[in-house]
Amino acid sequence: MEPPQLTATETSLILLVGVFNQYASGDSDKKTLSKDEFGKLVKEEFPLIFQGKDAADIMKRLDKNKDNLIDINEFMHMISDLVGKSYKMMCDLEPKK
Amino acid sequence: MEPPQLTATETSLILLVGVFNQYASGDSDKKTLSKDEFGKLVKEEFPLIFQGKDAADIMKRLDKNKDNLIDINEFMHMISDLVGKSYKMMCDLEPKK
Repeated sequence: MEPPQLTATETSLILLVGVFNQYASGDSDKKTLSKDEFGKLVKEEFPLIFQGKDAADIMKRLDKNKDNLIDINEFMHMISDLVGKSYKMMCDLEPKK
Repeated sequence: MEPPQLTATETSLILLVGVFNQYASGDSDKKTLSKDEFGKLVKEEFPLIFQGKDAADIMKRLDKNKDNLIDINEFMHMISDLVGKSYKMMCDLEPKK
């Protein structure tokens, strides 16, 4: 049986989950990102988007329950923010009519 | 000057913004998805993930301000939900130790 064909959009979603999983698996707690794991993810996966930003600062804002860990929901808030910011950037780049 | 090299993760983000923009541009209001535009997006971009689901039902849940339109923030809530659900699905698929 042929595996289902994913669209580029579905693939993007699965990729984002895969990135979280990949970096969260660095230590025994595979369901959250530690400070080091999060710093590595930001540096390696978002070098352009987070250029010059401090991962620890970003983590502080994201870590809603203040457990010094980032879970999938907190990670998703970051993705939401980033898409919102990228959208705004794209709108600003559009020639004014 | 060479354009900056995006990672796969950054490309996924930009793709999600691009998908919203593409379908929102179907009518004169380029900043939101109408019911038809949203139905088209769900059908064409998430055929597997939203298999058998009714776009109108999904829209009702997403449309927080009840204006019968989906803006970028409401769209992002959908993306957040989907990544959360995909993550849960992946965890459920993992062999229990």
